[in-house]
Amino acid sequence: MRNGHAVPVNTNSSSDPIRIALLGYGTVGSALHQVLVEHRSHIERATSREVEVVAALVRDATAPRPGIAGANMQLLDDADAVFALRPDIICEAMGGTDLARDLVLRALHSGTPVVTANKQLIARHGAELFAAASANDVQLRFEASVCAAIPVVRMLRESLVPARIDRVLGILNGTTNYILTAMTDQGRQFDDVLREAQQLGYAEADPTDDISGADAAAKLAILAGIAFHTRIDPADIAQQGIDSITADDIEHAEVFGCKVRLIGRAERMDDGRIAASVSPMLVPDPHPLASVQGATNGVMINGHPCGELMVQGAGAGGPETASALAGDIVGVLGSTPSFLTRDPARELAALSPVEEIAERHYVRMHVTDQPGTLADVAAAFAERSISIEQLLQLRSDESGDATLIILTHPASMHEVHAAAMASHCAHDVMVIPVLEVHS
Amino acid sequence: MRNGHAVPVNTNSSSDPIRIALLGYGTVGSALHQVLVEHRSHIERATSREVEVVAALVRDATAPRPGIAGANMQLLDDADAVFALRPDIICEAMGGTDLARDLVLRALHSGTPVVTANKQLIARHGAELFAAASANDVQLRFEASVCAAIPVVRMLRESLVPARIDRVLGILNGTTNYILTAMTDQGRQFDDVLREAQQLGYAEADPTDDISGADAAAKLAILAGIAFHTRIDPADIAQQGIDSITADDIEHAEVFGCKVRLIGRAERMDDGRIAASVSPMLVPDPHPLASVQGATNGVMINGHPCGELMVQGAGAGGPETASALAGDIVGVLGSTPSFLTRDPARELAALSPVEEIAERHYVRMHVTDQPGTLADVAAAFAERSISIEQLLQLRSDESGDATLIILTHPASMHEVHAAAMASHCAHDVMVIPVLEVHS
Repeated sequence: MRNGHAVPVNTNSSSDPIRIALLGYGTVGSALHQVLVEHRSHIERATSREVEVVAALVRDATAPRPGIAGANMQLLDDADAVFALRPDIICEAMGGTDLARDLVLRALHSGTPVVTANKQLIARHGAELFAAASANDVQLRFEASVCAAIPVVRMLRESLVPARIDRVLGILNGTTNYILTAMTDQGRQFDDVLREAQQLGYAEADPTDDISGADAAAKLAILAGIAFHTRIDPADIAQQGIDSITADDIEHAEVFGCKVRLIGRAERMDDGRIAASVSPMLVPDPHPLASVQGATNGVMINGHPCGELMVQGAGAGGPETASALAGDIVGVLGSTPSFLTRDPARELAALSPVEEIAERHYVRMHVTDQPGTLADVAAAFAERSISIEQLLQLRSDESGDATLIILTHPASMHEVHAAAMASHCAHDVMVIPVLEVHS
Repeated sequence: MRNGHAVPVNTNSSSDPIRIALLGYGTVGSALHQVLVEHRSHIERATSREVEVVAALVRDATAPRPGIAGANMQLLDDADAVFALRPDIICEAMGGTDLARDLVLRALHSGTPVVTANKQLIARHGAELFAAASANDVQLRFEASVCAAIPVVRMLRESLVPARIDRVLGILNGTTNYILTAMTDQGRQFDDVLREAQQLGYAEADPTDDISGADAAAKLAILAGIAFHTRIDPADIAQQGIDSITADDIEHAEVFGCKVRLIGRAERMDDGRIAASVSPMLVPDPHPLASVQGATNGVMINGHPCGELMVQGAGAGGPETASALAGDIVGVLGSTPSFLTRDPARELAALSPVEEIAERHYVRMHVTDQPGTLADVAAAFAERSISIEQLLQLRSDESGDATLIILTHPASMHEVHAAAMASHCAHDVMVIPVLEVHS
């Protein structure tokens, strides 16, 4: 087919190497450099172009770094000096959203294609960045910003262009899945496993973004934006973290034949609005997401005519993130810009309130162990026409409190929560939805 | 980046619709037509090009067919008439390898990009077809030829270009997975489930290609060809079908914590050669492929730096196959030909003999129930230094035969088979390998 406009190329002929500049040379940047050196023959065989990293922008260009054999690259601490080299492609792997935003905009305005691993940058500034990409007819690729090597952005943005996507659902955060899996396998408590995960480097010193669901929400905003052709503000996504999940909850879930997983989901509702949330969910064992273990991520896409597709793999890690960046570099070499300069998300979505979706819920509540308690709780649910599918009443603890575990029939979280809170004697209420195997 | 040569385009301007001709208008061809009409706005939004089906080549152009609203297409029974329309893209969905090969070659030689759903065509004639595509600098895309909507070809051919792939492994045939799942869930025998699958349309009247592993071998040849940059003749792939798997085998596998699945795998061995096979395997329950149910397909890819990736979805079906064809049409609109005219497979591989891979094996053998039998079997395994991990001796049947089920420690299938056959009293021996969760 007719190609769109060619991206301005600074090289004189197609036999000159493609010159790449890295913004940032931390775990991801250096892993990418390593991959581009080590696997350069793969890229050359496929694209007939040699790829060469000419410079990396770093904070301190004098800090000693381990060299990469066969590499001949400048470390620069001055962005002007990087742009003066007129690279063919800029790879952003510096993180943050201030300087990264400025430099990516500058690259796009200078007609240089950008590939980035920065999810906050895309989730927060995607609209502005894509406006610049379109105006300058250059590509902005961001596979590495969501779930590392898992090629879910390309699936949505290229393979599934002709499809109507109905739902995007997934385990989008490796740290929380690692914690939930360890809690499940070893019957341990959240705080205990988190501490260990921090020691092993699976969780950050400040794990707030992971635990709260904010990291998963940023990824969900990006994926749902492409899937539904609408921009989604991560701050608009309903979020519930995993810090209130106890070892007991996980055990009760097992009684119901389920695993507890932190699930991001975005779904097109009947009124055309998108419902989007990140929350712990009970996932029945036969569901493919129930078998996603440890730090692995998994994304499920439902649509027409593609049916149900699921892709899983490592959701983080230097080499895995570098894999996605390198794949995007190949993509820039292979595709016309006109197709991929456009914002896949477009205008901002007004989201549908997730707490109004009717689905089954798991409710854990502490109640004072006294006569009439169960009648009181049952009445509160009955008043709101919420049927109870299963109920476990656990023995009282030393304080005289009993725990009630309720699995409801489909009802809105709003109503379920109201019912639980209306029970006079209830406290410490937690409500999480149940993911259905077929929906 | 600089684009390669533009494909000759028959349209005069980029605002003219992209004119598509279908070769074949059966389940897949008509589903594709439906998708291109129904979802045309999705494609137009992404690519800024309108897509229009102008003609379909059929055997009998006068046979009545249900119309598609808003479609204005000619049914033609003369290939010359189709080519005379000078379509921009040709979609091959006719099946077979004789006429399909001639017409695809004709399209490529006339400079028309081709997308195809025909796995036998690519597996058998890929070298010749890609030579024509390269010589004429036009694209040949074949996502739909392997596992329908699952975008595994694009993963290997685009996202993972920079990676070194070590292994491709998967459930590549939906019919056999449907049968094995039904046998597992319902404890039924192979013949019984096959008959039902035929009645329900999940299996063909002649299911030989599915049952024997030949269908999976053709798909594996295509995937492994891309992954390892080498052409693999499906006939060189070691094949074992599922027709000798009994309900008892499935029950014994459960004792070992495994499911029985028909697995295609291609792996790069230490000597650089590729080992490729399609055979039933015992898959431990925690392995992601163990939870692939029913007619679903799943493909796992291991490599560096991508790590382990898995993708699953419907492996067949009109709409799902049309999804992949439509995605490829979008790909043709979006990519330069220079990148994707090349044969991803290249020269023919000399395969490594799979029966020499040391791994655990499941052995089922019938033995005459008499004194010394177990000693005889044990000696045969010991002589070949094959350790036995688990052994089940089942009660004799009416004929006086006992069944021995052996799970071996790692040993080559060659040796395991020899040991089983050397046991004087053994007959009806079946040996299948065990897939390890971490390898």
